[in-house]
Amino acid sequence: MRPVGMIGKWQDRFAQSQPLALEVGSGKGQFIIGMAQAHPEQNFIALEIQEVAIAYILRKQVELQLPNLQLILGDGAALTDYFAPGEISQLFLNFSDPWPKSRHEKRRLTYRHFLAEDQAILASDGRLQFKTDNQGFFEYSLVSMNNFGMTFDLVALDLHHDARVTDNIETEYEQKFASRGGRIYELVAHFPTKKDTPARA
Amino acid sequence: MRPVGMIGKWQDRFAQSQPLALEVGSGKGQFIIGMAQAHPEQNFIALEIQEVAIAYILRKQVELQLPNLQLILGDGAALTDYFAPGEISQLFLNFSDPWPKSRHEKRRLTYRHFLAEDQAILASDGRLQFKTDNQGFFEYSLVSMNNFGMTFDLVALDLHHDARVTDNIETEYEQKFASRGGRIYELVAHFPTKKDTPARA
Repeated sequence: MRPVGMIGKWQDRFAQSQPLALEVGSGKGQFIIGMAQAHPEQNFIALEIQEVAIAYILRKQVELQLPNLQLILGDGAALTDYFAPGEISQLFLNFSDPWPKSRHEKRRLTYRHFLAEDQAILASDGRLQFKTDNQGFFEYSLVSMNNFGMTFDLVALDLHHDARVTDNIETEYEQKFASRGGRIYELVAHFPTKKDTPARA
Repeated sequence: MRPVGMIGKWQDRFAQSQPLALEVGSGKGQFIIGMAQAHPEQNFIALEIQEVAIAYILRKQVELQLPNLQLILGDGAALTDYFAPGEISQLFLNFSDPWPKSRHEKRRLTYRHFLAEDQAILASDGRLQFKTDNQGFFEYSLVSMNNFGMTFDLVALDLHHDARVTDNIETEYEQKFASRGGRIYELVAHFPTKKDTPARA
């Protein structure tokens, strides 16, 4: 697998060309496999930096043979190494590390540097879907994504008890955390088209 | 009291001219009186539509003689009837009616029509501070204020347990609700300067 060589050509790897969704940090893949099964009308890529985890997803994929799922063993911090501008139509950030200390702000996946990477690979009508159980990380991300100039489509402050959301697919972590009564937060947002958007003061 | 005649001249009513903060819907005034006592370096106006409530605040004010607090018996839905453009430097929306039904969206004080009124009377560096205990209303307001083009300064998803906020003053309602373990939400945001802001798609 040479993902860098695939830039702009990901559709060639799938049985058919259809909107491409990416999960950054797929863990053992419960979410992305569930999505691929539930949405045959979309293509999916699981990006995961841990070999043990991606090997686990690979075994599942060999077993299930989903024609609309591809895997990348790689670093979610450098999305433009893997994807061409506008190549992705939906981006999932699920339960990434909250990096709670202030001095680690720049490591959070909703820090503006990473949002700029997301914006670069997302199609102009693309959506970013962010889930976390970490209250401080969600507060931070609401402010960071707003300050970046993103437009909010949905804010759910208790996703698992939200009547508006009927098609949530859980990650392994989410399932375990929520089963103990924990609250899950979700934000869906999109980037402005480039002409009308300086980041806001 | 003829508040409409005071447009642009509110500073004349105070002992001294200093930044002017407004609370829309003051109830019995615990919050605005607490603010006026805690911040002698600011002027405050309590706007309240219910006569019984404003009479209650008035009795307190006669007793306390705060030189930096004025009252208006009036309708918070028409702020531009009372204030000149930029006359207000800080605006408080505390526990206003959540109007939970979709068909009543236009009555919510964070609906875009009311935000436009807020924007009209706020100084260019003015801040809007919004508190509620209603989760659905807070979710709605995050989206509405973001979609209006406002920039978030602070999001607190559990205000009474937030280490960043040390100077919160409670309303009567807030004190009662929180004492029973309820969660309080807060959003502080500002409007863009007019040149760089169409409402976002």
